[in-house]
Amino acid sequence: MKENVKDRVLKWGWVVLPIYLFTFLPLHAGSVKSPNGNIELKFSVDSKGRPVYEMTYKGKAVIKPSHLGLELARDKHASKGLKETDLMDGFTITDETTAEHDETWRPVWGETATIRNHYVEYVATLLQQTERRTMRLRFRVYDDGIGLRYEFPQQKELNYFLIREERTEFAMAGDHTAWWLPGDYDTQEQETQQSRLSEIRGRFHEAVNWDNSSVATFSPTGVQTSLQMKSDDGLYINIHEAACTDYATMHLELVDAETKALTTKLMGSSNAYTPSPAAVAAATATVAATAPSVGYAAALPQPFTFVSHLTPDATGLKGAMQTPCQTPWRTVMVSDDARDMLSSNLILNLNEPCALDDVSWIHPTKYCGVWWEMIVGKSSWNYTDEFPSIYLDQIDWSRAKPNGRHAANNEKVRRYIDFAAKNGLDQVLVEGWNVGWEDWANMWKRDVFDFVTPYPDFDIKALNDYAHSKGVKLLMHHETSSSTQNYERHMEQAFQLMNKYGYDAVKTGYVGDIIPRGDHHYSQSMNNHYLHVVKEAARHHIMVNAHEATRPTGLCRTYPNLVGNESARGTEYEAFGGSRPDHTCILPFTRLQGGPMDYTPGIFVTRLKEWSDNTSWARITLAGSLALYVTMYSPLQMAADLPEHYERFDDAFQFIRDVACDWDDSRYLEAEPADYITVARKAKGTDNWFVGGKCDEQGHTAVVKLDFLDKGRQYDCTVYADAKDAHYETNPQAYTITKKTVKAGQTLKVKEAPGGGFAMSLIAR
Amino acid sequence: MKENVKDRVLKWGWVVLPIYLFTFLPLHAGSVKSPNGNIELKFSVDSKGRPVYEMTYKGKAVIKPSHLGLELARDKHASKGLKETDLMDGFTITDETTAEHDETWRPVWGETATIRNHYVEYVATLLQQTERRTMRLRFRVYDDGIGLRYEFPQQKELNYFLIREERTEFAMAGDHTAWWLPGDYDTQEQETQQSRLSEIRGRFHEAVNWDNSSVATFSPTGVQTSLQMKSDDGLYINIHEAACTDYATMHLELVDAETKALTTKLMGSSNAYTPSPAAVAAATATVAATAPSVGYAAALPQPFTFVSHLTPDATGLKGAMQTPCQTPWRTVMVSDDARDMLSSNLILNLNEPCALDDVSWIHPTKYCGVWWEMIVGKSSWNYTDEFPSIYLDQIDWSRAKPNGRHAANNEKVRRYIDFAAKNGLDQVLVEGWNVGWEDWANMWKRDVFDFVTPYPDFDIKALNDYAHSKGVKLLMHHETSSSTQNYERHMEQAFQLMNKYGYDAVKTGYVGDIIPRGDHHYSQSMNNHYLHVVKEAARHHIMVNAHEATRPTGLCRTYPNLVGNESARGTEYEAFGGSRPDHTCILPFTRLQGGPMDYTPGIFVTRLKEWSDNTSWARITLAGSLALYVTMYSPLQMAADLPEHYERFDDAFQFIRDVACDWDDSRYLEAEPADYITVARKAKGTDNWFVGGKCDEQGHTAVVKLDFLDKGRQYDCTVYADAKDAHYETNPQAYTITKKTVKAGQTLKVKEAPGGGFAMSLIAR
Repeated sequence: MKENVKDRVLKWGWVVLPIYLFTFLPLHAGSVKSPNGNIELKFSVDSKGRPVYEMTYKGKAVIKPSHLGLELARDKHASKGLKETDLMDGFTITDETTAEHDETWRPVWGETATIRNHYVEYVATLLQQTERRTMRLRFRVYDDGIGLRYEFPQQKELNYFLIREERTEFAMAGDHTAWWLPGDYDTQEQETQQSRLSEIRGRFHEAVNWDNSSVATFSPTGVQTSLQMKSDDGLYINIHEAACTDYATMHLELVDAETKALTTKLMGSSNAYTPSPAAVAAATATVAATAPSVGYAAALPQPFTFVSHLTPDATGLKGAMQTPCQTPWRTVMVSDDARDMLSSNLILNLNEPCALDDVSWIHPTKYCGVWWEMIVGKSSWNYTDEFPSIYLDQIDWSRAKPNGRHAANNEKVRRYIDFAAKNGLDQVLVEGWNVGWEDWANMWKRDVFDFVTPYPDFDIKALNDYAHSKGVKLLMHHETSSSTQNYERHMEQAFQLMNKYGYDAVKTGYVGDIIPRGDHHYSQSMNNHYLHVVKEAARHHIMVNAHEATRPTGLCRTYPNLVGNESARGTEYEAFGGSRPDHTCILPFTRLQGGPMDYTPGIFVTRLKEWSDNTSWARITLAGSLALYVTMYSPLQMAADLPEHYERFDDAFQFIRDVACDWDDSRYLEAEPADYITVARKAKGTDNWFVGGKCDEQGHTAVVKLDFLDKGRQYDCTVYADAKDAHYETNPQAYTITKKTVKAGQTLKVKEAPGGGFAMSLIAR
Repeated sequence: MKENVKDRVLKWGWVVLPIYLFTFLPLHAGSVKSPNGNIELKFSVDSKGRPVYEMTYKGKAVIKPSHLGLELARDKHASKGLKETDLMDGFTITDETTAEHDETWRPVWGETATIRNHYVEYVATLLQQTERRTMRLRFRVYDDGIGLRYEFPQQKELNYFLIREERTEFAMAGDHTAWWLPGDYDTQEQETQQSRLSEIRGRFHEAVNWDNSSVATFSPTGVQTSLQMKSDDGLYINIHEAACTDYATMHLELVDAETKALTTKLMGSSNAYTPSPAAVAAATATVAATAPSVGYAAALPQPFTFVSHLTPDATGLKGAMQTPCQTPWRTVMVSDDARDMLSSNLILNLNEPCALDDVSWIHPTKYCGVWWEMIVGKSSWNYTDEFPSIYLDQIDWSRAKPNGRHAANNEKVRRYIDFAAKNGLDQVLVEGWNVGWEDWANMWKRDVFDFVTPYPDFDIKALNDYAHSKGVKLLMHHETSSSTQNYERHMEQAFQLMNKYGYDAVKTGYVGDIIPRGDHHYSQSMNNHYLHVVKEAARHHIMVNAHEATRPTGLCRTYPNLVGNESARGTEYEAFGGSRPDHTCILPFTRLQGGPMDYTPGIFVTRLKEWSDNTSWARITLAGSLALYVTMYSPLQMAADLPEHYERFDDAFQFIRDVACDWDDSRYLEAEPADYITVARKAKGTDNWFVGGKCDEQGHTAVVKLDFLDKGRQYDCTVYADAKDAHYETNPQAYTITKKTVKAGQTLKVKEAPGGGFAMSLIAR
């Protein structure tokens, strides 16, 4: 049972400033404004009984009138109480409540020491008379956006239902510029596209990296969230979701003229559950399906309207629900200042408070690891090339013939431990330590790894002992190869092994196709799996950093041991052909909205062919790579390059040694999507600040007003900047390090090279 | 790694009589005879390179020339080594070996103390030249049938493959009479049909109980194995499979003229993997799909040909394989004496020896239980009717309002413990002891049970203590409601709970649709799951009795803690409308071929309305119900009726008290499918025999020749027989108990009433 707020406050001392202002405000039914009045939300039910909402910001339309509802699926068990009549129309409003809520809470880790959660809440209770079913729509209106969700109270006529599709509309007010990723059931690791909404369809095919073996697109106007947009009149608008637990991840499908035509053709089909061709094609994932959803879309009132599209399970269904329950929050953030998109805490605020009793074992972590040289292709995860295929229990690993390229060996790991100890890094990730890498991905192999058996050249006890003797921990790696059934079977033993040897963090991986076959990375069941892992890890006091898992929706507030996720195109792609220089100027607006990313920055030697056969190169300057430790907020930060590369540039590496990864305050100084981001952060429990600025391929001159420093105090300032002739392609390693003394009120201008950036430390005297 | 046979003999002392006669016999390549010469198997490769086999018994055709092969599925990961070229044709024979093998082994429990495994083995190694792939076909030819399987050695060009369909043909020599069940991916709980092969299509629709919510048929000529047939010239033929591990359960599809026509239409389609309409329809399981398999069927050479049809996964695929591997054995048993069908050990012999080091904790078990009154509807599994739906962690069970009908309460369980103790029963099953039964089935609810939390009126510690104080154990119940993900998550804790309280056996249940959604009860992944449970249970010294699981294929030899399965229409159907009186004269020929059934016999009060509102009635006489303890071999036997009903007929219940459930010897005296079965068994470690005779609705006079008794010795014989006027419908409780002294050489004639039978104990003086 959910505890009430008071209990939580008593239980968790770190919720320090609770202020409750539950007030029933007098206002027109169905219209509610944010605390400062900038945002207005209107809600009504139209002539067909369909719920409709709209949203303005300072009087400008953000969401034009848009429908809300869910199409349900008929099931063979209809007689058992599984309802199939849609929750789309026939509703009347039976009750409305409005209340203002204001509290401040303290995250276990974060960009700021405290977070204010201040909103006006509007709840409409709807009755579908014909079915005698009740549904609630809950809106929370913040000064920087709204959250809305569907709630399904426990009731006689609605105990269980199957979701055919959620039909939440977002009718945009114009042909905005959008930064979008192709909608996909299994991968988020694509390059962000920048285009008008009307250009999505035309750009879609080229936007997909079809070489990615996980690609499972569903519509040529399907895009992922978080979706960042900018209107011609200067509004920044972002659509995402918050608190997605045991529900399928939402995509957005833009309903343009072509989609409407197809949809109209499909109208009139019953809503009996039959997997659509799209669902089948998606399930087999061999090609991108192009069939649209069926149903109510033809009645869409607006151009440039997105409609929600959930990730299906193996049968094409979008969800199995039991009341009482609710959808995740659907979020729309808006501001006329791009910096507000980055400083917003709307998504964290919409998540539940911390569910863990004890959080003392959770800590921000800086780490290096045996990883990059494998990504680049210079060494291997697998120990042997001797066997055509592997049955884990049938190999005598001690007699297997080493391939001579195995990276996770005792000698190398000790080298990394020494490097971490010397440079104040907390942990050393080691990938490829455990048996099974010989044939681990895309074979539909269930029993891929056991997560407990090291290769013969990895002495798990000795290496952990050695690390601990130097004040360093090893960071565990569990690649599941998406065989989730196998992982769940071994997880308890795997976590026990971690506890035994003193690991307190695990990087998990979900490369390849999901087993059980037919399921998708972002389905309801997989979202349940990821959270199950986080909860089980918490029981063992283990922090989780999940790669290739679903995109985060702020669950790290509730489960702060979820310290990181990948869920986007990370640094590894610099070894796979590279990412555009503006990539890291987009991610904070999109991917990072839901939670921190383990981006694994810090590549100093960007031309990989300098030390390997890999001809790819990182599209970033060395100074720019330092900036990422500040601009890409995460409590988990990797120094991803090789120790010898850092030793070559030890003066620059000083910034990585110094920079914090947990903060008392953060100030976004400058921001424009895909152009530049400049942010200043105050290191937790200190008076020191760190500033990072990152720009796109155009370069940028950052203007850093030192307003945030304590007045009258002097600071030792070190600036790591691109040299004058630096360039991400032609001269990435040209940087300058300048030291000076500064104080509040001063303004520093720092020039960023194309694809470059800067980093700055401000140490209080 | 498989240990060699010698190691096994040393390891398991109970393998007492190993005789190895590996001899390379001189015979024509591709033709091999059974040890006594009755069965001849021929194998060749036809002009297209397709493997073909045929089989005769005493010169009569059993299997006419039939193809062997597998269609493979193309996968998007073809480039990763997943092969898609079929394993159907283009083969040449590169090697043939023949050897005779004779050993005798001792089962942990069984119908006989020792089992002879005597066969001639023929192995053909086949090369598919174009793909440079090798496949082996292994045949074992016994005097009472054959086993054949495909083997895929580990090799460069065949490491992983996906099975689109296995195409093993069984061309029958005539329009045999068959006892068949509708082929179904999810249920075996149908009434057996008796018809000519040519009549299957016409009978199919009426053969299916469409009210069973699990029905997922796939073809109007699809039938299940074990399939018992009888030819017009008096041959009894049975097709089944042995040692089905990590492979989909096989069905048989009869390719008649109509199927051929449809198949021909579908020919020419590529074998690229796309879920067929049949697979999709099966996945949604709303209707029986009628589309046939595609591919090679049109080339079938024979009428009355069955072709294998595997159970698909959620995507329609039939299997994901990694070499080295093999299919289960496909078995054809044959004799001109029906009794040989029942005494055959062919399926056990084709399974691997015991895989458990310690089997001391495995024991035959006679039990009663809190069960029948719930099946009948007089009481309930659930504790409360208070909640529309249940979240396990949100109910305060101690405050929930009892519905007053909850059967698994302390008082009632103590009553059953007392009854068991008084009557020498070993265990007491209690269903409905654990929370979650309020909304447990067919809701697509994942987190249904936790398997560790008792209802408030079930004091798990006190009841186990009480039972143990009386020399009785409780028998655990784990209904999974087919939410296998949930069961696997809780299984370790559930087994630990059992260990803590002294349970050593669990009845598992798989009612309802499989979660993960889209999967089927008999798929590769589910077969893996069932065996996973058995293996994990063995680690905890727990015996398993799995209901609604896949039909057994002799795995109880390898894992003798798998002491029972349901996997057919059990006694519970006597409360759901009843089963035909001949049902129990068919099951030993079909369902029991693969392993024992927890049929739960012993209903003395057949008219349920005598004590409940249920108007159904059991189609059996009381004496017939006693017979089942002998005719339906199982090491696990339930006395299923209520204690008070047994107390009413205590003189008859004496047989249940006396009868053994483990045997040193078994002699099938009379048998005809669906007509009658008479069998004598010698109780393990004693000189006592028990005889059972069961007949159909026609009645039968059993002739029991006491040849099997020790010569010259006297036996106290008690015969529990139908009274003269007994009848399963009109007078089921009319029985006589006769005592006499008998000796070897005598012949007893016992009249069995319509739907009746008899039981006999022969206690050596």
